[in-house]
Amino acid sequence: MISVGIVGGTGYTGVELLRLLLRHSQVQVRILTSRTEAGKRVADMFPSLRGHTTLEFSDLDLDQLAQCDVVFFATPHGVAMQHAEKLVAAGTKVIDLAADFRLQDLAQFEKWYGMQHSCPAMLKDSVYGLTELNREKIKQAQVIGNPGCYPTTVQLGLAPLLKASSQLIDTQSIIVDAKSGVSGAGRKASLGMIYSENADNFKAYGVAGHRHHPEIVEALENISGQKGQFDQLIFVPHLVPMIRGMLSTIYVDLTEQGQQIDLQALYEDFYKNERFVDVMPANSSPETRSVRGANELRIALYRPQPNKLIILVAQDNLVKGAAGQAIQNMNLMFGFDEAAGLEGIGLLP
Amino acid sequence: MISVGIVGGTGYTGVELLRLLLRHSQVQVRILTSRTEAGKRVADMFPSLRGHTTLEFSDLDLDQLAQCDVVFFATPHGVAMQHAEKLVAAGTKVIDLAADFRLQDLAQFEKWYGMQHSCPAMLKDSVYGLTELNREKIKQAQVIGNPGCYPTTVQLGLAPLLKASSQLIDTQSIIVDAKSGVSGAGRKASLGMIYSENADNFKAYGVAGHRHHPEIVEALENISGQKGQFDQLIFVPHLVPMIRGMLSTIYVDLTEQGQQIDLQALYEDFYKNERFVDVMPANSSPETRSVRGANELRIALYRPQPNKLIILVAQDNLVKGAAGQAIQNMNLMFGFDEAAGLEGIGLLP
Amino acid sequence: MISVGIVGGTGYTGVELLRLLLRHSQVQVRILTSRTEAGKRVADMFPSLRGHTTLEFSDLDLDQLAQCDVVFFATPHGVAMQHAEKLVAAGTKVIDLAADFRLQDLAQFEKWYGMQHSCPAMLKDSVYGLTELNREKIKQAQVIGNPGCYPTTVQLGLAPLLKASSQLIDTQSIIVDAKSGVSGAGRKASLGMIYSENADNFKAYGVAGHRHHPEIVEALENISGQKGQFDQLIFVPHLVPMIRGMLSTIYVDLTEQGQQIDLQALYEDFYKNERFVDVMPANSSPETRSVRGANELRIALYRPQPNKLIILVAQDNLVKGAAGQAIQNMNLMFGFDEAAGLEGIGLLP
Amino acid sequence: MISVGIVGGTGYTGVELLRLLLRHSQVQVRILTSRTEAGKRVADMFPSLRGHTTLEFSDLDLDQLAQCDVVFFATPHGVAMQHAEKLVAAGTKVIDLAADFRLQDLAQFEKWYGMQHSCPAMLKDSVYGLTELNREKIKQAQVIGNPGCYPTTVQLGLAPLLKASSQLIDTQSIIVDAKSGVSGAGRKASLGMIYSENADNFKAYGVAGHRHHPEIVEALENISGQKGQFDQLIFVPHLVPMIRGMLSTIYVDLTEQGQQIDLQALYEDFYKNERFVDVMPANSSPETRSVRGANELRIALYRPQPNKLIILVAQDNLVKGAAGQAIQNMNLMFGFDEAAGLEGIGLLP
Repeated sequence: MISVGIVGGTGYTGVELLRLLLRHSQVQVRILTSRTEAGKRVADMFPSLRGHTTLEFSDLDLDQLAQCDVVFFATPHGVAMQHAEKLVAAGTKVIDLAADFRLQDLAQFEKWYGMQHSCPAMLKDSVYGLTELNREKIKQAQVIGNPGCYPTTVQLGLAPLLKASSQLIDTQSIIVDAKSGVSGAGRKASLGMIYSENADNFKAYGVAGHRHHPEIVEALENISGQKGQFDQLIFVPHLVPMIRGMLSTIYVDLTEQGQQIDLQALYEDFYKNERFVDVMPANSSPETRSVRGANELRIALYRPQPNKLIILVAQDNLVKGAAGQAIQNMNLMFGFDEAAGLEGIGLLP
Repeated sequence: MISVGIVGGTGYTGVELLRLLLRHSQVQVRILTSRTEAGKRVADMFPSLRGHTTLEFSDLDLDQLAQCDVVFFATPHGVAMQHAEKLVAAGTKVIDLAADFRLQDLAQFEKWYGMQHSCPAMLKDSVYGLTELNREKIKQAQVIGNPGCYPTTVQLGLAPLLKASSQLIDTQSIIVDAKSGVSGAGRKASLGMIYSENADNFKAYGVAGHRHHPEIVEALENISGQKGQFDQLIFVPHLVPMIRGMLSTIYVDLTEQGQQIDLQALYEDFYKNERFVDVMPANSSPETRSVRGANELRIALYRPQPNKLIILVAQDNLVKGAAGQAIQNMNLMFGFDEAAGLEGIGLLP
Repeated sequence: MISVGIVGGTGYTGVELLRLLLRHSQVQVRILTSRTEAGKRVADMFPSLRGHTTLEFSDLDLDQLAQCDVVFFATPHGVAMQHAEKLVAAGTKVIDLAADFRLQDLAQFEKWYGMQHSCPAMLKDSVYGLTELNREKIKQAQVIGNPGCYPTTVQLGLAPLLKASSQLIDTQSIIVDAKSGVSGAGRKASLGMIYSENADNFKAYGVAGHRHHPEIVEALENISGQKGQFDQLIFVPHLVPMIRGMLSTIYVDLTEQGQQIDLQALYEDFYKNERFVDVMPANSSPETRSVRGANELRIALYRPQPNKLIILVAQDNLVKGAAGQAIQNMNLMFGFDEAAGLEGIGLLP
Repeated sequence: MISVGIVGGTGYTGVELLRLLLRHSQVQVRILTSRTEAGKRVADMFPSLRGHTTLEFSDLDLDQLAQCDVVFFATPHGVAMQHAEKLVAAGTKVIDLAADFRLQDLAQFEKWYGMQHSCPAMLKDSVYGLTELNREKIKQAQVIGNPGCYPTTVQLGLAPLLKASSQLIDTQSIIVDAKSGVSGAGRKASLGMIYSENADNFKAYGVAGHRHHPEIVEALENISGQKGQFDQLIFVPHLVPMIRGMLSTIYVDLTEQGQQIDLQALYEDFYKNERFVDVMPANSSPETRSVRGANELRIALYRPQPNKLIILVAQDNLVKGAAGQAIQNMNLMFGFDEAAGLEGIGLLP
């Protein structure tokens, strides 16, 4: 049984962490902080938790947090990096669900997040928490940068191709047409997020630039082991009138080599031991509702032309795209069964 | 051709006024004010208006507004009453879509809106703009208090009973179980209104007290001509995960007299000359989508027990419940065809 | 470990049973029948189950079913009663999620379901599965009639009043204004259920008569122990554009006695040992999303007038209103912890 | 004033034609046929039309239809072609909203629609009704094949590039990632279309082949004047949980020439006289709700890389994508103002 702290428990990733961790048999959530709600019971804010916890929000107290075995930061960007060093020094592991430990390229971090990084040395030692691709490092990590939701779909959607021994795709041809439910934008009082602005509506956003773009590029470079290969990657996110769910439709040009091999078999083999990645049969269409509330990601392949591949990737942005993957990482870091607390089946309908 | 000003054009009633008035052949919208968006083209904020108007938001300038024939206030409560006197003095008619001129009872106004009324004398001369029930006074009015959306459904749902020569219902038995789409709460950056808090969810709100309650009671007293008869009225609003639309389910106990007469005929007769009130046949169920975008209100009656009547009333909260009724009133005030600019058919699906 | 069969696994209650039972540690689902899909893997129909089961649909084979410890019928009305006798004779317990064993009044059953009851003797021995109110009988039952979703909310919403030693309410005054998500209508190819007919829309339905009305009346009579007391009960269901969730707003007149006592305390005391019924504090508003996917029912009380009580009751229609309560009953019948397999926390957002 | 017949008035394009034509001042709808609903008043099926028409559905009677000036077919594929010859022989113009007169390539028609074409000669004389691109031919046409909804967005999204004097794009690089509201699938009792299968969900469909693919290819060939150039076009439609609306995100590779010119200016110039096509400023994001209910199509351009262009195209699938464009064509065929009956402003929110 380990003790857990959550910093920033009033957002959607915070309450999702609670939903999952309160049912994790090897975990006790001890601390839940909020700048604005200290003293309030979390179940008063999130009535789904009534009867499941008597936890109250507290002010952020580093000494108390340092007594936890692990602290999740479900905070805005820039918070975790202020506190990670002290926590790690005290022997507490850190899992940041924001962007502070995602990008190794400091210039990109500063450009896209508008702030200087406060602990570059710790960043260098941190591990990028895309569980399936980084498992061994995660087991040893003190600090995890939990991936963004979009980048999770793109990496797991392309990894089998990029990890293959020979060049299977033209890496400069990648187009990611991605679609997300509204919860991906967080729990904020913002005019653009209100119901009547989003319901019965569909649009692209961030076409001219989105923070997940540099994360995707850096992560793909790390997977393929080569810099500069993804400079022309196109990433267009869209907003879907649904609460949870994310689908990325990825288009790539196959090389001559890529056209020769059985890509379906390649994917099935690559993920054959993965409990949370599901390669569906040919001609399947992964629906977001098939993973609603579940730590799962489904992939399907299409080959509309001999030299073209379409990769469909679906996940719940709050689970495999955020809180679920964070717990998957925690499980690895503490030697638990990787699926502990993550066995729930998605809610369909 | 009259000239129109709209104060507060950035909310949903503001853009709905524009949608309708820009297609009204006897009206020219000259001024559209906004405290925060002066200088911006309204079509940049509401892209549905691109190609339909080049209007820009301007600061509120009373002298300019006073050159309009009529000014609509689509503002928060308390704004219209600050400016109405000057406008009326200049010969400009005023239609307030907020609450400043709805309640004649000043104590109730102050209790529910948390402010003193700044022009009680003008309030006394103002006319409550429930068009079908107040038509002659509206034609002569200088200042209109446009009814709240819920009160519109309750008044039109009960008027045939209350206007009958004899007592047909136990007025103390009235229960209004009302349901509204989210746009009724306006266009505001508020946590409680964001998409993920409202989609796929249903709840009651304001059960312990809602501002439309005193408006309903005062209005029903005016219809029936008797004070104190509605003190026990129960009003419970609910929030529906839809953009537009309102359905009130009204329960009343019939008196002995009420049980004797043909209530369906009573309603059909009462509204037989009304273009915007539709008494549906027995066993109909008025759906909100049947009036989506239209200045219509549909009523259906059920008699589950000899002494019980259920009245279902549906409307679009932004049209017959707000902007449409305001234009209906304007048409009367200027001698236009009451339906001018309001002939559009609802969007189904 | 008991073995379970599910007859009719292609509807929403069927897949919901699977979602919950596949995670129940003392249960193995052995058989899943479908008239139309025999031979197909259930995970091919419901992709949320991919990776969680290899079960295939099979034809209904009574001999095989009779080898199960318990069989759930998630079928249309009229199926369970054809097979229950043989199963019970073989020692297999039966839980019917349709209406075959809900109504003891055969005339009412025939009137509302349009068929003769095929095993009235067994009906007499069956137990109505409103768990919290019938616990001891359920433990001994061979056949359970699992309650309808609406009746569950009404019974649990009124039971503390009806079970009190003295008459607290005018039982003839009860009005139930109920609202349900669309999944309550099942998984059927029906024009009235398609997306574009229901999204962004709200309406009442079944106002002139709904099958749950006689079930509510009979059940309330059983709770209060007196016939005829609820003949004037009014029940008006409405359809909400959401997938899951149900809210009943119940209005009752309090007697003199009812006005004297602390009703909030009465409810809290009545349910103090219930794990799945949550009496919320005064002025709370139970939201359907607070129980999304969870076997919970939340209640809140309001007292708008001294002699009027409003009871708000929220549940997930597919869980506490159907599959969850069925499993709660199964747990009792087999001596398991009543909450086994039902500990999941609701999905909010 | 012309007289109009509509064959197949029970689907969404049928009721949308009625919504618009009943407000068209130069048109009288005389006949509305339905195989299944003859004798029923259309307002009983579509309550939004109550008070706006007393039309009844009638059986299809060619002699009566032949007395109309124009007949719209809002029917399943294959109906219009059975009747068009007789109508045209009688001097009645035909506008088919299904696919019978869209594809000139008979082999493609037979392959995708599973039927032989019954009047190939008439097909040859028919005109493809993409109004903005085919205006002169439409004015002279006796038979119009009204375009599919997806093809409308792709043609208007690409026409400025394809009509330019020199080759601006690599025509084999085109990827169309398209998203549609559910009403695009029509008004049919189908399990896949019910509310609980589509709400809060997102998926691709028809990835392995969609009927609009050959239509897009043939239409683009006609625009560019060259065969074979679009054989590698990729088209992936997705289903959005909304009623109306369509957004196509189109990706193309620019040639050296295409990289030299001002594409924003090219588009603005190409559409400068078009009332229903709106080229938005740089960095705009066309939202589907900005055209809800309106006969408008909005385009925005992005240039994420020097050699890459992204074209976003939004429309209401039932208006500019179906009924609205059909009326636009009718206006041309009868010499009316092209915008007659189509001036309505979109419903936002």
